[in-house]
Amino acid sequence: MKKETYSKAGVQIEKAEGFVDRIKLRAKRPGHEKMWKGAGGYAAIQEVAPDLGIAVTTDGVGTKLLVANELKRHDTIGIDLVAMVANDLICVGATPTMFLDYYAVGHLEDELSDAIIAGILEGCDQAGMILAGGETAEMPGLYSKGHYDLAGFAIGTVQKSRLITGDKIKPGQKLIGVASNGIHSNGLSLARKVVPKPSWDKLLEPTAIYVKAAVSALNKYHRDICGIANITGGGWRNMLRLNEKVGFHIDHPLPVPKIFQMIGESVDTEEMYKTFNMGLGLAIIAKANDDAIVSEFASKGHFAQVIGTVTGKSGEIEIDGFKFTLKSK
Amino acid sequence: MKKETYSKAGVQIEKAEGFVDRIKLRAKRPGHEKMWKGAGGYAAIQEVAPDLGIAVTTDGVGTKLLVANELKRHDTIGIDLVAMVANDLICVGATPTMFLDYYAVGHLEDELSDAIIAGILEGCDQAGMILAGGETAEMPGLYSKGHYDLAGFAIGTVQKSRLITGDKIKPGQKLIGVASNGIHSNGLSLARKVVPKPSWDKLLEPTAIYVKAAVSALNKYHRDICGIANITGGGWRNMLRLNEKVGFHIDHPLPVPKIFQMIGESVDTEEMYKTFNMGLGLAIIAKANDDAIVSEFASKGHFAQVIGTVTGKSGEIEIDGFKFTLKSK
Repeated sequence: MKKETYSKAGVQIEKAEGFVDRIKLRAKRPGHEKMWKGAGGYAAIQEVAPDLGIAVTTDGVGTKLLVANELKRHDTIGIDLVAMVANDLICVGATPTMFLDYYAVGHLEDELSDAIIAGILEGCDQAGMILAGGETAEMPGLYSKGHYDLAGFAIGTVQKSRLITGDKIKPGQKLIGVASNGIHSNGLSLARKVVPKPSWDKLLEPTAIYVKAAVSALNKYHRDICGIANITGGGWRNMLRLNEKVGFHIDHPLPVPKIFQMIGESVDTEEMYKTFNMGLGLAIIAKANDDAIVSEFASKGHFAQVIGTVTGKSGEIEIDGFKFTLKSK
Repeated sequence: MKKETYSKAGVQIEKAEGFVDRIKLRAKRPGHEKMWKGAGGYAAIQEVAPDLGIAVTTDGVGTKLLVANELKRHDTIGIDLVAMVANDLICVGATPTMFLDYYAVGHLEDELSDAIIAGILEGCDQAGMILAGGETAEMPGLYSKGHYDLAGFAIGTVQKSRLITGDKIKPGQKLIGVASNGIHSNGLSLARKVVPKPSWDKLLEPTAIYVKAAVSALNKYHRDICGIANITGGGWRNMLRLNEKVGFHIDHPLPVPKIFQMIGESVDTEEMYKTFNMGLGLAIIAKANDDAIVSEFASKGHFAQVIGTVTGKSGEIEIDGFKFTLKSK
């Protein structure tokens, strides 16, 4: 019965990972000595002054674009675009400051373009970022009628003393879960395959932007926050990116949104946790003040709770109730 | 006879400009006070320390992608991608440091992806930039077989004292032209329409990267360099972006590459100068040491010469020999 997988939906994760590994191998060029290592590789960070790093990252919204196209609703996809990169920057402890978009389309239509940019501006507001620039490319011949693509770029700043490297993560520390806003912007190729079209409006819910809560929490508790994982492509395995020596034990998971229950009827549970956020939008590892950090997120409108602890089982996530273990590879 | 225009080739410049104006109007948000104004809007610049600004910009390669696809040669399009953004950063006086790419495709193919990334790495080497990150998006359903899109994002640093604002440009100053490497990455929608396919290999010549020569010239002569224009979309009108009070008189133009003579058989001369670089890749305005700046570019392999002077005729470019004037609007 449960036979759908992300790979069958046309996405070749291993191939993509192999390609990325080959790039990393070949991109080692002079100048790298000025780069700082941030936890999980969520952003590249370059030192521009003795105590100041510039964090940068890029991402798209994947085939959530096709959901927006199908529903003819384009005013929230820009929120997703900002969320995907802004939420990555906070994972290294950076404060997001500037956003730029790349918007490519077959033929420019005012109504469509204005809806997209309205979403981007809303996302920038939610993240406290400036829309610093962008490129609008009209390419007849490359994009079919009504189709478009979006890429987002984000820049932030981080002091060296506040950089999150993941090295301080140790067994026994608390794992805080911050609730997602549904499927966010990953795994849509699979979700579109198994969710009936009348329910696609649930797939289009915009990604939660955690920036203001995270920046506020980092300002107050940066000494206690040892890791932050944005749960995107790869699902819960994102937590394992932060420190290869540890694992996680989840005993009080966040509620799983209905959309995942619907998808879960066609997809194996382990595949679900390896592809989707399953209600966990952001995972925070704290060595102290976990209750205060939870309150900080709650005060900014994000439901959060302590969901588990860090373990010494390298590369493993144990989840109570499901009785299974996710491995990093 | 000469009836082709950029607009007839399917690109609606006015519509794109209207959209960009609407974005600018709506993007005015708190935080803008920390932004510096760079000449021509080639990059957004944010102050991150009292004398340090971070310059950022984004761009794509337009429908040069379709030329690469037609010729099945994908190992130089990455050079164009880096060039488009790196050459923009130098126009505000910044030193490019980091590059990120967004690469979207229907189905990942190793050979294609490796060729693209080889070009990006070559471009980063030529520009002295680090390939700091990137996103590879596999989107079955959005891109047709073999089609892909690329967006580039560049970050640089600039000291406030070295920021090029364009305000120092005055009538009488010298205009230096640095030779292009052919069509670069703009106007391809029109060029593809009028150039016969057996000559498309000339359309694929990679964009010249001026970074190392420009950074070297800026290090030595930053007090003398009052403006730099990267001649991209909009052709020679890019020079008029630098300072609205002045114009230019061109009396010793650079040689016009053959590819433009071929296109010029179907396109009006004024339209040519409003769409293509016509041999002029980079325009530099210098109040002194123009010969030394020319030599600096020559020593890095770029042909350059003084091609004219700054005039007081606001928004006008006069070109000897053609007896016509380009206006900014």
